[in-house]
Amino acid sequence: MPELKRIGVLTGGGDSPGINAAIRAIVRRAEPAGLDVVGFRDGWRGPVEDDLVPLGRAEVTGILHIGGTVLGTSRTNPFEKDRATGEWRATPKVERILDTLRRRRVDALVAIGGDDTLGVAHRLAAYGVNAVGIPQTIDNDIAGTDYAIGFHSALAVVTDALDRLHTTAHAHHRVLIVEVMGRDAGWIAILGGLAGGADVILAPEEPFSIREVADALRQRLEAGRRFSIIVVAEGARPVELGGRQVAQEGRVDAFGHPQLGGVGYWLAAELEKEGLPLTPRVTVLSYLQRGGVATPFDRLLATRFGVAAVEFALAGRYDAMTALRGPDVVAVPLAEVLAGCPKPVGPEFLALARNIGVR
Amino acid sequence: MPELKRIGVLTGGGDSPGINAAIRAIVRRAEPAGLDVVGFRDGWRGPVEDDLVPLGRAEVTGILHIGGTVLGTSRTNPFEKDRATGEWRATPKVERILDTLRRRRVDALVAIGGDDTLGVAHRLAAYGVNAVGIPQTIDNDIAGTDYAIGFHSALAVVTDALDRLHTTAHAHHRVLIVEVMGRDAGWIAILGGLAGGADVILAPEEPFSIREVADALRQRLEAGRRFSIIVVAEGARPVELGGRQVAQEGRVDAFGHPQLGGVGYWLAAELEKEGLPLTPRVTVLSYLQRGGVATPFDRLLATRFGVAAVEFALAGRYDAMTALRGPDVVAVPLAEVLAGCPKPVGPEFLALARNIGVR
Amino acid sequence: MPELKRIGVLTGGGDSPGINAAIRAIVRRAEPAGLDVVGFRDGWRGPVEDDLVPLGRAEVTGILHIGGTVLGTSRTNPFEKDRATGEWRATPKVERILDTLRRRRVDALVAIGGDDTLGVAHRLAAYGVNAVGIPQTIDNDIAGTDYAIGFHSALAVVTDALDRLHTTAHAHHRVLIVEVMGRDAGWIAILGGLAGGADVILAPEEPFSIREVADALRQRLEAGRRFSIIVVAEGARPVELGGRQVAQEGRVDAFGHPQLGGVGYWLAAELEKEGLPLTPRVTVLSYLQRGGVATPFDRLLATRFGVAAVEFALAGRYDAMTALRGPDVVAVPLAEVLAGCPKPVGPEFLALARNIGVR
Amino acid sequence: MPELKRIGVLTGGGDSPGINAAIRAIVRRAEPAGLDVVGFRDGWRGPVEDDLVPLGRAEVTGILHIGGTVLGTSRTNPFEKDRATGEWRATPKVERILDTLRRRRVDALVAIGGDDTLGVAHRLAAYGVNAVGIPQTIDNDIAGTDYAIGFHSALAVVTDALDRLHTTAHAHHRVLIVEVMGRDAGWIAILGGLAGGADVILAPEEPFSIREVADALRQRLEAGRRFSIIVVAEGARPVELGGRQVAQEGRVDAFGHPQLGGVGYWLAAELEKEGLPLTPRVTVLSYLQRGGVATPFDRLLATRFGVAAVEFALAGRYDAMTALRGPDVVAVPLAEVLAGCPKPVGPEFLALARNIGVR
Repeated sequence: MPELKRIGVLTGGGDSPGINAAIRAIVRRAEPAGLDVVGFRDGWRGPVEDDLVPLGRAEVTGILHIGGTVLGTSRTNPFEKDRATGEWRATPKVERILDTLRRRRVDALVAIGGDDTLGVAHRLAAYGVNAVGIPQTIDNDIAGTDYAIGFHSALAVVTDALDRLHTTAHAHHRVLIVEVMGRDAGWIAILGGLAGGADVILAPEEPFSIREVADALRQRLEAGRRFSIIVVAEGARPVELGGRQVAQEGRVDAFGHPQLGGVGYWLAAELEKEGLPLTPRVTVLSYLQRGGVATPFDRLLATRFGVAAVEFALAGRYDAMTALRGPDVVAVPLAEVLAGCPKPVGPEFLALARNIGVR
Repeated sequence: MPELKRIGVLTGGGDSPGINAAIRAIVRRAEPAGLDVVGFRDGWRGPVEDDLVPLGRAEVTGILHIGGTVLGTSRTNPFEKDRATGEWRATPKVERILDTLRRRRVDALVAIGGDDTLGVAHRLAAYGVNAVGIPQTIDNDIAGTDYAIGFHSALAVVTDALDRLHTTAHAHHRVLIVEVMGRDAGWIAILGGLAGGADVILAPEEPFSIREVADALRQRLEAGRRFSIIVVAEGARPVELGGRQVAQEGRVDAFGHPQLGGVGYWLAAELEKEGLPLTPRVTVLSYLQRGGVATPFDRLLATRFGVAAVEFALAGRYDAMTALRGPDVVAVPLAEVLAGCPKPVGPEFLALARNIGVR
Repeated sequence: MPELKRIGVLTGGGDSPGINAAIRAIVRRAEPAGLDVVGFRDGWRGPVEDDLVPLGRAEVTGILHIGGTVLGTSRTNPFEKDRATGEWRATPKVERILDTLRRRRVDALVAIGGDDTLGVAHRLAAYGVNAVGIPQTIDNDIAGTDYAIGFHSALAVVTDALDRLHTTAHAHHRVLIVEVMGRDAGWIAILGGLAGGADVILAPEEPFSIREVADALRQRLEAGRRFSIIVVAEGARPVELGGRQVAQEGRVDAFGHPQLGGVGYWLAAELEKEGLPLTPRVTVLSYLQRGGVATPFDRLLATRFGVAAVEFALAGRYDAMTALRGPDVVAVPLAEVLAGCPKPVGPEFLALARNIGVR
Repeated sequence: MPELKRIGVLTGGGDSPGINAAIRAIVRRAEPAGLDVVGFRDGWRGPVEDDLVPLGRAEVTGILHIGGTVLGTSRTNPFEKDRATGEWRATPKVERILDTLRRRRVDALVAIGGDDTLGVAHRLAAYGVNAVGIPQTIDNDIAGTDYAIGFHSALAVVTDALDRLHTTAHAHHRVLIVEVMGRDAGWIAILGGLAGGADVILAPEEPFSIREVADALRQRLEAGRRFSIIVVAEGARPVELGGRQVAQEGRVDAFGHPQLGGVGYWLAAELEKEGLPLTPRVTVLSYLQRGGVATPFDRLLATRFGVAAVEFALAGRYDAMTALRGPDVVAVPLAEVLAGCPKPVGPEFLALARNIGVR
């Protein structure tokens, strides 16, 4: 193993609060170990285009709490998926990344991101890149770790929104729908709904029936409850649509996935068709969930992950991800992580909701 | 003038943070003056159906900061508008209100609400009701007062949302659209957009052109700005639609007004048609803007208005509204208030936006 | 084992945000299981004086997020400690508690509190009381569980305070001292200081030297850093005082412990004596750390603990505490819990601070 | 009048949230008017030592909401006060300022600060400096304007603190003392105490008696109120001390004023001597009140003041301060402003507190 002298850092995928705390921790841990740190800009675009900046104490001062990422992010992916076989194939960008790392003498690369970013890190490891992954996504659907950076901050936004809606929902007879993120997994919807006292939670893990939701709302009205609050994940799946997600017709995102979003309005319209006596009002939190300051939980987690990533590199522990397991930070092989993504919400939380009477 | 012994209070229209602070102040000011206070439930439904509760110190303890209204609210209106002539006609509910006030010996009635609620108070004054109005609406479109209760609290929600979006907008190249309340006036959009650093603000006061918005966004991209944030009021009026609002097809609200909302999504789709290279993402704040704790500004304003309402009653100053004029709380005749509603945003704020380069 | 029909709940010790969420969860879990719930008022005073209220769905509506405890709390302790031997002796209050539980047919008792409250629960178990404990304390010094209810909410207060101070510290050349809670353990100081980016953290776990702190501050000034932020736990122990805590002369609290507090001012004065060129300014967070809304983490933890407590009772699992161990909620014998209190901050966090260059 | 081409900006005195919004507005307003802007660092130290930076759009991006000041501040004063006569005399620093302004071709100077900073601006005007003042101080004691930048942000901190304390105060029988800023005027104490529902407010405007406070607390206890919250300004004046402030013995600040602070602890000790049955707990907010994000109110106010300052310069309206008078921003001669400082809280707010039963 060649001596470790310089670490590169990049941040990919959708951003989330806490990334900057991880970058700061990497720099603060690397410095006393005699290591240099450089940051690549805009995810994988950075090493592809040789776009990088030195990262020292000065560059990471004052960023601990700030959401977003000082390094920028992008959806650039040096591999492309074969639609037929589902396999990933290297594009010429891979060679350019390897070239950048060689020329810039970057001995180890810390990639902070979701499953796409971590997947690239793993595939690059096959090319000899000394890669360490740090999981960050507000969706919390990365396997192998109890929590990813950003999830608790998103949870705080959703919970705060539900608190606000409770005060106004009391005043009037109202049904309020809150659409939250969660394409493949309902972590934000279910844990946010529980923390915010939602009456109905609709998540991708379990298809739901519009009719049953309407019935639940009617029962609450009949029981004299003045209001109901529904949390619905963008990836929720109505049985009336054959358990498929509510996609915006014909629109796809940067990956060719059907574009979700708007499920809240769709739900409101369907509930009205079911004869609900109140017009539901819709709040769409959207990118609010990515924004703002990181919670203490995320800052501590990110600080621990950043420190651990440097220590994995010092120990030559590559092709691995920093992971929270109970109270401990451990290394999990990236292959194992990727095999388990997207990680659904565990049965203990689904049971918890049912056990306290949330639909 | 008969001696004043008992004051009734009711809260009507859409609720907003600060109402409870006003109710608390009325009770705390009335008590040492030897006055009884009763609260009617759910706006005008309360006196129509003789539904009321005594309000003493115990009932208003701990409610100073809480959003919503402990008295509840409703859209009940004892008058109905003649669609042909636009005139208001008394329904039999008026007689029931007068009857309740007589039987319950309510000598003065404080109505806390928006222009609908204040309009009823004014029309009831013609029947001999000793009415005092307190303006509350997050929309701030009530004439005669600099500010209504609730506006600054809604502003805080919008500003906080824009702060959050800025952090995540920096990370990616993004166009973010935030839909805010404001059917007839753009107070929330314009002052919120200014306080939150929006790049484009679209409000009912000035029709806008989709094409011009798209051009402005393109210019920002070309100038190297990574992102743009657009604040759009639900009542914004595109010239491409002949300056009409973007109504949800065929849907009307409780008053028969066309149902607005969803303008954010509409704008996103239109901007894509204009060839914008980025898909705008939409956040719909909706009832979040009504919820949560009242800001200090609203608590102080509400406390002053509540105290003033009792003092107006003690002075026999009826058919009037408590109003903030500069630093002072004054009485404004309700007729004058109603003649000026809805109050648009003043030219000084429109000029302010232009002068600091906001479109 | 007699059939379980009625559960009693009480909350003791210093309160913390999240207690109400636990009470709510107990009621919501008990109801579908066919169990009655009663709440005792003001900790152990409730069963001693037969002061209790029924708790149903209506009583726990709207309390999920609110700090404090709807049941009240007190320092009443039915046992008293022999100062000579350190052993606990029953007072006549024990018999009154047993009598209340018998007469009110309370089959199981859930005690929510810190080590004092849990200690009473354990000692009552020896008298045949079916006791389940739920750990709550902002200090997080209860053994057997990763986290107690309230700790993360206190952390949020401290972190938010440090964020605020950073903005103003930048403007001037300043040394800011923040005094936080933590008599026996430095959880709040160390994790809060890390999350809030403190430059110096002083906690009970490791005695500190005034001289060394002054040196560290001087080094920062010389390195061109405009400001320094020090977090000091009330129980921090200067070597210059022989490693003893900074007690307020002659004052003791309700338990006869020396009254701490004011250590921040003491530290400021000592640093000035050391010739520091800047007068440190002191913020004392005090009871702010107990107050406010519970964070999502604490609401979820409290909800899980509340549900688990009922399930422990249903399973006849008494003389035990609900505990978080990694991702799981488990039962830990109260005897084991009490033997480990107060639980100091673990070495991984002490190392973390050192590894990122915090003194 | 020579043509206006370049504006200088500096920020002096204690900082407060909103200053950066004013700097940003100056730059954004100046640019389309064809004006250059330069910023001097650390208040009057900047022009004395010729320490300045160009300020363009890039420099003020992203600073709208951030507390503190990107230009830094200091207590440097180019004039010194004759202790005997109370008159201000120029030091050699005045000449250096004039020299810097000449050489750097700074045609107009905007000074953002409190009465010290504004006083310097006024005295420099006598030397031909084209000075415009913008009032900023959390203390709000600057005459001529309804509000200074920063006051509403400090109010938000105090109000939020009181909200938090209310939740925990309910749980126990407690007396909580909150020490807030306000050496000469009680704006923060009185308006913050009203907005946060304090039971007792002690401010410099009216001397108070310890005995009377103790009596008020006892009455509350006897009336069954579980807790009392006292807000005390650092400059409050007990009659028992002859109406003098509670200074820290022998310590003075940078101006030679007696060092206040610690009045909360002093009050707690005195109340205990009066035989109060509960030990009061003390929170000292200190610099928290200066920190954090600016409220929407302060951002709007600062934006308006920044724009107005440029417009005053364009109109040759110098030796004046931007001021809020009701809804309008107007120019007030600096001489008039300084004659009225420190501005006490107006009688309407003192009356308001009394009228709703606050001591």
